[in-house]
Amino acid sequence: MSCLREERNRYQPRIPKKLEEITSLRVEVEEAPILTKHPRELEEIFPKTFHQPLLKFSKAEEKSARPLKVGVVLSGGQAPGGHNVIAGLFDSLKKIDSRSTLYGFLGGSSGIVEDRLVELTEEKIRPYRNTGGFDLLGSGRTKIETPEQLESALQNVKAHALDGLVIIGGDDSNTNAALLAEYFLTHNCETKVIGVPKTIDGDLKNAFVEIPFGFDTACKTYSALIGNIARDALSAKKYYHFIKIMGRSASHIALECALQTHPNYTLIGEEVASTKGSLEEIVQSLTDLIVERAERGKNYGVVLIPEGLIEFIPEMRTLIQELNLLMSVKGEELLKRLSEEARKTFLMLPEIFQEQLTLDRDPHGNIQVSHIATEQLLLHLVKRFLKNRADYKGKFQPVSHFFGYEGRSCFPSNFDSNYGYGLGFVASSLIFQGYTGYMGVLQNLASSPEEWEPAGIPITMLMHLEERKGRQKPVIEKTLVDLKGKPFTTFSSLRGEWALEDEYHYPGPVQFYGPPSLCNEKTFTLALEQETKVGIHG
Amino acid sequence: MSCLREERNRYQPRIPKKLEEITSLRVEVEEAPILTKHPRELEEIFPKTFHQPLLKFSKAEEKSARPLKVGVVLSGGQAPGGHNVIAGLFDSLKKIDSRSTLYGFLGGSSGIVEDRLVELTEEKIRPYRNTGGFDLLGSGRTKIETPEQLESALQNVKAHALDGLVIIGGDDSNTNAALLAEYFLTHNCETKVIGVPKTIDGDLKNAFVEIPFGFDTACKTYSALIGNIARDALSAKKYYHFIKIMGRSASHIALECALQTHPNYTLIGEEVASTKGSLEEIVQSLTDLIVERAERGKNYGVVLIPEGLIEFIPEMRTLIQELNLLMSVKGEELLKRLSEEARKTFLMLPEIFQEQLTLDRDPHGNIQVSHIATEQLLLHLVKRFLKNRADYKGKFQPVSHFFGYEGRSCFPSNFDSNYGYGLGFVASSLIFQGYTGYMGVLQNLASSPEEWEPAGIPITMLMHLEERKGRQKPVIEKTLVDLKGKPFTTFSSLRGEWALEDEYHYPGPVQFYGPPSLCNEKTFTLALEQETKVGIHG
Repeated sequence: MSCLREERNRYQPRIPKKLEEITSLRVEVEEAPILTKHPRELEEIFPKTFHQPLLKFSKAEEKSARPLKVGVVLSGGQAPGGHNVIAGLFDSLKKIDSRSTLYGFLGGSSGIVEDRLVELTEEKIRPYRNTGGFDLLGSGRTKIETPEQLESALQNVKAHALDGLVIIGGDDSNTNAALLAEYFLTHNCETKVIGVPKTIDGDLKNAFVEIPFGFDTACKTYSALIGNIARDALSAKKYYHFIKIMGRSASHIALECALQTHPNYTLIGEEVASTKGSLEEIVQSLTDLIVERAERGKNYGVVLIPEGLIEFIPEMRTLIQELNLLMSVKGEELLKRLSEEARKTFLMLPEIFQEQLTLDRDPHGNIQVSHIATEQLLLHLVKRFLKNRADYKGKFQPVSHFFGYEGRSCFPSNFDSNYGYGLGFVASSLIFQGYTGYMGVLQNLASSPEEWEPAGIPITMLMHLEERKGRQKPVIEKTLVDLKGKPFTTFSSLRGEWALEDEYHYPGPVQFYGPPSLCNEKTFTLALEQETKVGIHG
Repeated sequence: MSCLREERNRYQPRIPKKLEEITSLRVEVEEAPILTKHPRELEEIFPKTFHQPLLKFSKAEEKSARPLKVGVVLSGGQAPGGHNVIAGLFDSLKKIDSRSTLYGFLGGSSGIVEDRLVELTEEKIRPYRNTGGFDLLGSGRTKIETPEQLESALQNVKAHALDGLVIIGGDDSNTNAALLAEYFLTHNCETKVIGVPKTIDGDLKNAFVEIPFGFDTACKTYSALIGNIARDALSAKKYYHFIKIMGRSASHIALECALQTHPNYTLIGEEVASTKGSLEEIVQSLTDLIVERAERGKNYGVVLIPEGLIEFIPEMRTLIQELNLLMSVKGEELLKRLSEEARKTFLMLPEIFQEQLTLDRDPHGNIQVSHIATEQLLLHLVKRFLKNRADYKGKFQPVSHFFGYEGRSCFPSNFDSNYGYGLGFVASSLIFQGYTGYMGVLQNLASSPEEWEPAGIPITMLMHLEERKGRQKPVIEKTLVDLKGKPFTTFSSLRGEWALEDEYHYPGPVQFYGPPSLCNEKTFTLALEQETKVGIHG
């Protein structure tokens, strides 16, 4: 075991004061606002759980406890802090009653359907405390959707007489949690289903969920690397680094990393969409910057590109949609059948990307947008544009990078260690109090962990309807970057300076020890949003 | 300024006890062994400096001091710890005499030739203490070789009346330091030239230089990322990660990272060369492993590939040599003119790599070996081989990565912070004592910094002759991985287990604070080599 792993296993996460005495809590209910445009349809899908109230916690007399049996599952992409949710669940269940049992379902939600599970003991959990990865249980992307799957899940939780089932996951997994909760209630099953908000992408957030766990560590990990590269660029003074960063559609990660590192140019997908920016315009403006920097003797720089960018460029969207429909058509024939706009876009792409778009398809024949190497596409196009610039006397030596997998399974920052652990307590608490169909959250996160506020959010409250595979389905809306929000406006007011001056910041690797200001740093996103938010807590 | 940068600026590096009283040192000389096969030729090139003795330091009476004027230059690729050499130089020169002055030449050695320099004050140096990058002065790869360059350098150091010139660099830069020292002596110039061993690649080492600075931090930075990815692979259980790591020809970095993270498969260039492994054999053995892991239900893994691998595969070497000679020949004609062996190798390569080899040339028409995406080449070939394996039932989803720039300019570990700073003291000390043509080193590095032993190594002692551009030139030999050394034999005895079991280690990000065992960790390479080494100090 590495030295850091041993040290981290010994770390005792800080928990919210309110959760210290987990059996002495009173739940206060508050009417949940109706946020969806489809209340009727959702009420039909969720007759039992749609109108559930918001839940807050306050201190009360000790409540008598009994041992609880709870199952937990890790769902979807890895996020730092997941093991701590499990550790928090385990410790809080034992606090409620030392005879409580925690089971872990293996390999994601399919573990529930296929009844693959292990009992989690202190011995098993200990080496995973405050560590990254989802390797304690594995993960998976299966959704429990078909009648057969739902029925198997029901039979399995019944067979194990589970009091609760905790699903740690993103928007889809929490939607799934709501469906299971409804199904269990309808079938008189006592198992309470609680969701926990997880995703490095930061897109599962709203007025009630301040941030999912994992975002903090992932952004810090990427920012450390971007900072290193920026410093290398400034030292060597000869490379342009085009860095693509994970984050699915939304540009939350790119925005946070920009605030942490001050690159010369950062694309924000949501802004491109709002200004209807074309690929040509993007490349043009990047080229302009490179020419202007060259005039100042600077033939180096750092460009950040969010993974989801391509989906936000209207003409690329059109092209991809048309190509998806023309899946087996190739060559001259393809060019003929594309619309004029799509053909123009297609022909603008370097050959290697044309090939990729026509060849690299998923099992349904769709283009795999996340496989498109946007960082290399931009770099190729910029190179081409620079050749046509008579006023450009510089030397363009680009290097491309993609950061993603590096930030999903790393040791959680102190923030995410505390946060994940606390979320485990909230989930136990909700089960102990007998609630189902809720997402367990912590609010007031910009304060110190002791001041964090536990709450229960009815998952259905966060839903709306979306077309998926031709059918209207209930989903939790992914939250995109708010172009009027403080994180974006702050970035927007500073980026002009960052473009030409080299004001790179070097956050360095995530620190777990040392001065509190260092090892408990918060993301800018959280801090800036909290500054402007009218506190939910008055 | 980032929080970590502010904190690091306050860190006070630990210095060797022997260097605490820098004006109270006695130099003990010891005959230098003749290691080169070309003593005659070297003696001719370096008549004044070839037979200089080894230098050790011990405590003595205080020596009277006078203010010194010293110039310093950062040369070649960035390595963490470079700014600390400068800080150490500055502080030690001020200790010798508070009126001493330090100048920094800008943009590498060309700064000496072109007389671009700044005076370095505490105010200028402070924000760079214990930080990464070479951005305080910039760097460059210019060598001072031509009579005109040598003469300009001479005139410039004379004009500034420099007592010393410190060149922080790798093998080439230290060779250059020796040439300058000789030239200055020959021309009755009093400026002493001292080299400092720098390179993340770890290939500037021998019986006298235990390790260059920068290697420690770079390896820890890459290992943190490799560990993160390994944990992600083990959690998601669906990807094979092919990770190429920087390090020029030698595989020191790959070996160290393997010892730190335990990947399933690590290629070591020197081993491939010694067994005359062919590309086909490499791909075959990788494919075998993937098939065997699939039989155990494991469709994921981590493969490490050193940047220099390609040069060690005999058939690839042949192909590259032939292609370099046939620079403008293409298509059918090219195939005709290649030797049978080279043609076979060429045709084995995926089309995209064939194109790259025929198109991507440096200004001299040579193939840019470092541009070859070996990680993707192997991944393509493995994919092809797997298709022909009837016994393979697994799913192969590869992801490729290249880590390099991330590790060159990051915050130096405590080890490299102390080491760089101490090297600055050694360099001052050598100048103060009036020596030239030396590399300043610290030995006994596996002990605590207080016990490190300063020494002076005549640079010419490390040289031999090599053909460069058709002429015999004095160079410091790059040290390759010793296949009989403890680091490699340790790796070799463990890799069988790592291949099939998942014994990944997760070192996590470099820590600067917290338990000493954590924030002062040493590389395995250093620790293992010291275990077996008969101490130079008895």
